[in-house]
Amino acid sequence: MDLATIIGIVLGMVLILMAILLGGELGLFVDVVSILIVLGGGTCAVMIRFGLKDLTNAFKVAGNAFKDKTAPLGELIDKIEELATLARKEGLLALERVSFDDLFLQKGINYLVDGADSEQLQTLLYTDLANTGSRHENGSKIFAGLGDAFPAFGMIGTLVGLVNMLANMDDPASIGPAMATALLTTLYGSVLANLISLPIADKLSLRAEQERARKNLIIEGLLGIQKGENPKILREFLETYMPPVERKKDE
Amino acid sequence: MDLATIIGIVLGMVLILMAILLGGELGLFVDVVSILIVLGGGTCAVMIRFGLKDLTNAFKVAGNAFKDKTAPLGELIDKIEELATLARKEGLLALERVSFDDLFLQKGINYLVDGADSEQLQTLLYTDLANTGSRHENGSKIFAGLGDAFPAFGMIGTLVGLVNMLANMDDPASIGPAMATALLTTLYGSVLANLISLPIADKLSLRAEQERARKNLIIEGLLGIQKGENPKILREFLETYMPPVERKKDE
Amino acid sequence: MDLATIIGIVLGMVLILMAILLGGELGLFVDVVSILIVLGGGTCAVMIRFGLKDLTNAFKVAGNAFKDKTAPLGELIDKIEELATLARKEGLLALERVSFDDLFLQKGINYLVDGADSEQLQTLLYTDLANTGSRHENGSKIFAGLGDAFPAFGMIGTLVGLVNMLANMDDPASIGPAMATALLTTLYGSVLANLISLPIADKLSLRAEQERARKNLIIEGLLGIQKGENPKILREFLETYMPPVERKKDE
Amino acid sequence: MDLATIIGIVLGMVLILMAILLGGELGLFVDVVSILIVLGGGTCAVMIRFGLKDLTNAFKVAGNAFKDKTAPLGELIDKIEELATLARKEGLLALERVSFDDLFLQKGINYLVDGADSEQLQTLLYTDLANTGSRHENGSKIFAGLGDAFPAFGMIGTLVGLVNMLANMDDPASIGPAMATALLTTLYGSVLANLISLPIADKLSLRAEQERARKNLIIEGLLGIQKGENPKILREFLETYMPPVERKKDE
Amino acid sequence: MDLATIIGIVLGMVLILMAILLGGELGLFVDVVSILIVLGGGTCAVMIRFGLKDLTNAFKVAGNAFKDKTAPLGELIDKIEELATLARKEGLLALERVSFDDLFLQKGINYLVDGADSEQLQTLLYTDLANTGSRHENGSKIFAGLGDAFPAFGMIGTLVGLVNMLANMDDPASIGPAMATALLTTLYGSVLANLISLPIADKLSLRAEQERARKNLIIEGLLGIQKGENPKILREFLETYMPPVERKKDE
Repeated sequence: MDLATIIGIVLGMVLILMAILLGGELGLFVDVVSILIVLGGGTCAVMIRFGLKDLTNAFKVAGNAFKDKTAPLGELIDKIEELATLARKEGLLALERVSFDDLFLQKGINYLVDGADSEQLQTLLYTDLANTGSRHENGSKIFAGLGDAFPAFGMIGTLVGLVNMLANMDDPASIGPAMATALLTTLYGSVLANLISLPIADKLSLRAEQERARKNLIIEGLLGIQKGENPKILREFLETYMPPVERKKDE
Repeated sequence: MDLATIIGIVLGMVLILMAILLGGELGLFVDVVSILIVLGGGTCAVMIRFGLKDLTNAFKVAGNAFKDKTAPLGELIDKIEELATLARKEGLLALERVSFDDLFLQKGINYLVDGADSEQLQTLLYTDLANTGSRHENGSKIFAGLGDAFPAFGMIGTLVGLVNMLANMDDPASIGPAMATALLTTLYGSVLANLISLPIADKLSLRAEQERARKNLIIEGLLGIQKGENPKILREFLETYMPPVERKKDE
Repeated sequence: MDLATIIGIVLGMVLILMAILLGGELGLFVDVVSILIVLGGGTCAVMIRFGLKDLTNAFKVAGNAFKDKTAPLGELIDKIEELATLARKEGLLALERVSFDDLFLQKGINYLVDGADSEQLQTLLYTDLANTGSRHENGSKIFAGLGDAFPAFGMIGTLVGLVNMLANMDDPASIGPAMATALLTTLYGSVLANLISLPIADKLSLRAEQERARKNLIIEGLLGIQKGENPKILREFLETYMPPVERKKDE
Repeated sequence: MDLATIIGIVLGMVLILMAILLGGELGLFVDVVSILIVLGGGTCAVMIRFGLKDLTNAFKVAGNAFKDKTAPLGELIDKIEELATLARKEGLLALERVSFDDLFLQKGINYLVDGADSEQLQTLLYTDLANTGSRHENGSKIFAGLGDAFPAFGMIGTLVGLVNMLANMDDPASIGPAMATALLTTLYGSVLANLISLPIADKLSLRAEQERARKNLIIEGLLGIQKGENPKILREFLETYMPPVERKKDE
Repeated sequence: MDLATIIGIVLGMVLILMAILLGGELGLFVDVVSILIVLGGGTCAVMIRFGLKDLTNAFKVAGNAFKDKTAPLGELIDKIEELATLARKEGLLALERVSFDDLFLQKGINYLVDGADSEQLQTLLYTDLANTGSRHENGSKIFAGLGDAFPAFGMIGTLVGLVNMLANMDDPASIGPAMATALLTTLYGSVLANLISLPIADKLSLRAEQERARKNLIIEGLLGIQKGENPKILREFLETYMPPVERKKDE
């Protein structure tokens, strides 16, 4: 579970609720039509941009913003050092006996065992590296798109409300409440963008980056194993890919 | 038909209409002069930027945002595997007998059959790749330009209305309706930009990207066929260009 | 004549005038001091940025936004094919007898005839290519700068007017007209930026790009002539630089 | 101590306090709920983006914005010249006897002494260079994120306040104070972003850049030492990495 | 003297003064506290970002925005042609007798005379080229930072004023003047950013670019002299670095 995402959204909502309840009553801030305009309109705009399939996928991928499933890089480096030691002692074919959770590592080891040369290995794995991560990237773009579209439709809703209010200014008593309702769509648009869509877009983009960094480290490790590098030196080299703080902990 | 584009625009308009009708009457929101200023002014600004021919082309190209004509990459890879098998068995010249819907693939096969070497093939096809897609890109830029210009002319219209209203504030009763009308251009500008122009610009840019990805895959496939690569390995390599989800389905 | 630029500006102004006249009278919208602040202030800001000489040049170059002088790429390719045929038949020196309107083509042919080798030719022409186009680019940057500065000075003018109005609120009757006048600078800034400066900046940038594409095509053509390439193949290669639509027409 | 950061923040706060006290009383400007919404909401949004661990790290790293610990480049160049002289006279192994505060320099010297060749040295050190600095960069991104999120939650707080005020406009006397409170969140968001978060983000990014420049200079120095370059010439070359002003002082 | 900078700032101020005096009196627009908040607050924010030393340097460098000291490129090319002729006739050592105002040219000639080979020459001069210009760039960034910070503190000042005014709305007569004062900081921030800081930032960035172009031309010239190139051909090659207009004048 990615606690940060859940705590962030829940706590953010609680803070906004607190502001509402301390100054008035919740009922004033709930308006179904306003919610429909902002949520629906923003989603429509993004649907045109990316198509139905990508939009649906994005919501599936968004689940990843709530999960924290990346195993630490340190464990991966341990594993690669182990494989390098095994390969040095018993040859590359010995790697066939080991199995992995990580699909990308498995794939690379399969190429190694099948006798792909260094150049083939790089071509195959870097092409894969360049083309994956795109699902997360795509999800990130769609949430960033929602983060653009929600405030825009918030403003459109407010403009509709203002025009209606201004055209019917006969009853001064109704001006205040009418304008309050008009502002609701702007409020919804701003909360949906700044507390939900934009942060999730950034989290998904971070996930894509982590995935790429991880795959890069795996490729470097596999090339080192193939060259029969000294496992200790290979480990030291791979550790330069980790932030210095985490590195220290391992020692 | 690209349903997402059509549903997105229609549903978005319905939501805005709903907001209008629940709060007042449609007549308040229709003003021909305001529409002329925003639509006309925005189009004028974009016409200066890109010229008449490009503007007209953009509207033709925009049709593509409503059509979904890209055949799935999976089918293309099947086709290339088939060609690779044929070329291996009966030689490159055998490819002459096959014909294709895809003009770019046809062109590449023609070069292959005509005996272009690997370097020539790459030069010719990559230059073509670099230069096409530009029609979609151009259309995308023009719609993005409209997405900039419509809100600007919306604001210009509102300023004109405000100046007129402020200079004639003798009759307080007329202030409300005059200001309501003044705000209409801002509303039009915002809807035209955020529901129509900007999403279509993004969709056209996505189409250009898909076209480029497709051509790239074709070039890689043709180079593999020319080298006489094993069709299975070629297939596996080309599949790294597909998102992992779609890849799985094939298996 | 680049009709798009002229029609765009004139029609845009007509639309704004129409909005003005339908809602009030033109006199309300003309204020010499306001015009001086926006036009003068914006020009001052840009003068500091780029200097007097560049500013003056920019206005000269801006004329190009109103002229459409680029000969179609198709004609240029015809010319190059012709030269390639001549060079093949009678040798490179025969090119000396031909003369050209296009100064860049002339220059390249001169180098060819003088016996520059392929590397020298590329160095000389690509350096020229990298350094020209800068006049248009410079003009484009200056108009983009004006497009930034006009709205800023529009806002400054409005703030000055608002402060004056607010400090003298004794006579309620004068508030409306004073505020109307204050808004005029914002209106001027917005029209000058969105209808004139920014579109012209983009048009000049497009011209620079077209010039670069043209020179690139000429360089590729000259290199092909030097290598003694088959004129038909050279033509086909150069045509990949044209948008597919225009290409079709030639055939 | 980085005096600039401390003076900047303290003096900035004093100026704002002065403005407050000259126009009213401090009590008007302190509202705990408003502070909670802006500080809490903004932090929640950033927590979703980057996760708890990165957020906590960012506050630790932020301490660096208040410390000025980078030794001048001039001293580093003196050190490298000394090492180059030593290595020339007594061989690379003599460097083993020297010890350094700078961990990166120490690491590079160790590689040198261990007999790494020029290519290995570059691979190891440049990979380290590319991967470090990321802690500062990460801290910088998080503060930039706060600089985005604080004004957004400032606006959200103001919208909540406005809706509450507008819905209860019965008592005209309460409008002013209610609106004053509503504006407080916007004020907080603006001060937190423009006086604290964004400047600290830039300072951390500057620190990362300085660290990179320093490591780059060390790598160039080590490569020069390995090649046995003349210490004077090496010094002159390394000094091109310093701003000319500082260079002059050394002479 | 860079007349454009001086005229731009003076004339811009005159225009704003004119707008003030035609609509009211100067006294309304001068408020020492407001000036302190905007100037002081903006400077504090930038001080945190860049540190005291860089801020002080930036004001020194800013003087360059008011000086026009770059000798025309034409003269530099004349000088290089002369040196090339001398070197061809009497050998590279003859260059030792010539002396130059331009420090960079002097330095390059010294390397030439000292017998540096082509590669050394390029390494030394391009490293210098990459590292200088940074003083101007730094000054430019700091003024761009001020251009961001002044409007932000203008807004902060206005918010403080508005909160004070709204909390004390008992006396309607005081509302106008209080709001007028509140708006002053926004006005100051806008003028300081758009008439002073941002244009000076751009001018300094232009100066950095000109310096880089000049040094680039000098490096190309020195490499040509070293290779013993024909002075005429060298001249023609160097002239491609000049804008075509200026080139024409020389002929």
